[in-house]
Amino acid sequence: MKSDGMNYAPKGKTVPVVKPGEFVFSAVALDHGHIYGMCNGLVEAGATLKYVYDPDPVKVEAFLKAFPQATAAKSKEEVLNDQETRLIASAAVTNLRCPLGIEVMEAGKDYFTDKAPLTTLEQLKSAREAVLRTGKKYMVYYSERLHVESTVYAEQLIMEGAIGKVIQVIGLGPHRLNAKSRPDWFFKKEQYGGILCDIGSHQIEQFLFYANASNAEVTYSRVANYAHSEYPELEDFGEANLVASNGCSCYFRVDWFTPDGLPAWGDGRLMILGTKGYIEIRKYIDICTQDDRGDVVLLVNQDGEQRFDAAGKVGFPFFGRLISDCIHRTELAMTQEHAFLAAELCVKAQMNADKAGKID
Amino acid sequence: MKSDGMNYAPKGKTVPVVKPGEFVFSAVALDHGHIYGMCNGLVEAGATLKYVYDPDPVKVEAFLKAFPQATAAKSKEEVLNDQETRLIASAAVTNLRCPLGIEVMEAGKDYFTDKAPLTTLEQLKSAREAVLRTGKKYMVYYSERLHVESTVYAEQLIMEGAIGKVIQVIGLGPHRLNAKSRPDWFFKKEQYGGILCDIGSHQIEQFLFYANASNAEVTYSRVANYAHSEYPELEDFGEANLVASNGCSCYFRVDWFTPDGLPAWGDGRLMILGTKGYIEIRKYIDICTQDDRGDVVLLVNQDGEQRFDAAGKVGFPFFGRLISDCIHRTELAMTQEHAFLAAELCVKAQMNADKAGKID
Repeated sequence: MKSDGMNYAPKGKTVPVVKPGEFVFSAVALDHGHIYGMCNGLVEAGATLKYVYDPDPVKVEAFLKAFPQATAAKSKEEVLNDQETRLIASAAVTNLRCPLGIEVMEAGKDYFTDKAPLTTLEQLKSAREAVLRTGKKYMVYYSERLHVESTVYAEQLIMEGAIGKVIQVIGLGPHRLNAKSRPDWFFKKEQYGGILCDIGSHQIEQFLFYANASNAEVTYSRVANYAHSEYPELEDFGEANLVASNGCSCYFRVDWFTPDGLPAWGDGRLMILGTKGYIEIRKYIDICTQDDRGDVVLLVNQDGEQRFDAAGKVGFPFFGRLISDCIHRTELAMTQEHAFLAAELCVKAQMNADKAGKID
Repeated sequence: MKSDGMNYAPKGKTVPVVKPGEFVFSAVALDHGHIYGMCNGLVEAGATLKYVYDPDPVKVEAFLKAFPQATAAKSKEEVLNDQETRLIASAAVTNLRCPLGIEVMEAGKDYFTDKAPLTTLEQLKSAREAVLRTGKKYMVYYSERLHVESTVYAEQLIMEGAIGKVIQVIGLGPHRLNAKSRPDWFFKKEQYGGILCDIGSHQIEQFLFYANASNAEVTYSRVANYAHSEYPELEDFGEANLVASNGCSCYFRVDWFTPDGLPAWGDGRLMILGTKGYIEIRKYIDICTQDDRGDVVLLVNQDGEQRFDAAGKVGFPFFGRLISDCIHRTELAMTQEHAFLAAELCVKAQMNADKAGKID
């Protein structure tokens, strides 16, 4: 039970949107365990997984155990040149995600990368240009919203007007560090991008989504390494405030302080305040309850209090929509601009972060 | 049950620290209902209530119903000149609290005011000077920590090292507006001081307390009137970030958006993150539970998860300590510097607040 979130790969009840063989994708670059969740989501939605490639045969072998239907490709080029493959799912080292994405799109395929999708404004510029040039998609696995049933359910409540207009979103994203299980690049800032760029990306994306914001600015951000001086480039704490152009605001905190006694990788919370009520989501665990169940949505408005257990009931519509978007060139799963805006704000929050406060 | 917090006056199990008549106090200025909680806390701790004075006889009459042992004084001067009265408890209109306090201290009595204790830096300067000049106390009823059993219990857990070093404090302080029950001054910014100065004062004080901070700075703050254009000087939303000189940080949000369906005046929360665990306090209600009980303390650390129900078990040690401090000229209840530092940061957060974001 004491997982670290690295291999978080929820199983859903998503209905296939295509028949076997109708939408083929492959996996390239298995540096982060999120690739399992990404591929599983696509497979559940009906996509057919063809190739897998990573320079590390150990990673490929492990992947093939989870997805025996895949074939190990001999090289990245074999996958890029494959005519059947329409989308490539990737979880490269964070600062290599953008160059890989540009290669993928140049090869005429849509790209679906783990978050954060990029680490610098220069990468963002080249990614935007490549999308325009190729007409392909650069989609992002913002798993802490897209692959969590409670967050999907909250979307429905907000659409129904349950809390009026959304005024503010607060996100708490604690993670278990589990340092010994982490690869070297996880502790190198240039490679992982900083905590606000890395796990902060989930927070910023979900804010933009629930706020229905087409633009926003970072009004304050801060990072710290409070208690891990043995990893000088790790940031174990990050926080940021944002205000969207439509007036809605956001505060979030991310950290690597999940205690060992918590039977989940993190007590992720989301509080959405509206003019007529509020929603709290206890994403992965409802602490100090008997069964430690997650995916709990709490709604308070003029009609009273309501608790919803979303686990196993809602599914993950993102994946089917993504497949459909790739086929029909629509943007129902996520607009390209939304994916890039979230990325841009993460990089800016990270670049301008205050470093005030050192406990040690 | 749908109270607005205005008349919040918890009953505790505080043990008297003095015998009847040994510590006499009086009440002057009944503009905010907090005066009931203040007087009740002192009476439970053994203090003897002598006079009450307010220019409004209706307020005095209501007060005498709750505290029949008190005598209505003919004038403020009668109370100020009373030789037996050692402390005056007051809940004046916010921007009048400081001038009253200076009068009280000049009359040779300690002052115990409702929060916020003052509204400008000029008032703060004159209050500091008056304390030095008179040697009297200017104490503040930061009720959302001092008069809540769960927050008192959390203090014990932190002292025992349950979560290691405190890194960050997040406070959520939603309140029910209940506009029709509010006096005129509640909607006049010069008088109530702004939302960060007013209800934000609880948040800043509790941050300084749990962080054990002797100094701090406001790194970002923001106010808005999102949905109450009929009260142009009301701020229905406020938030601020602080960093203490010892490295601990704080984010808090305060607002007037408690929905009518919540059977409490506000879903006040406090999340205290430490290097070895965290504490969440659900102060006034644990939403969506069967009995809607508040005063719940949740602790997660290396040993697992624990839930404590603090209601009726912990009491409010502040009041007995305050009486003792007044008698022995000690500072066990709260140091003067702490009370003033919280006030200073509230005023600064308010003065420098960003006004970005207007939903209407």
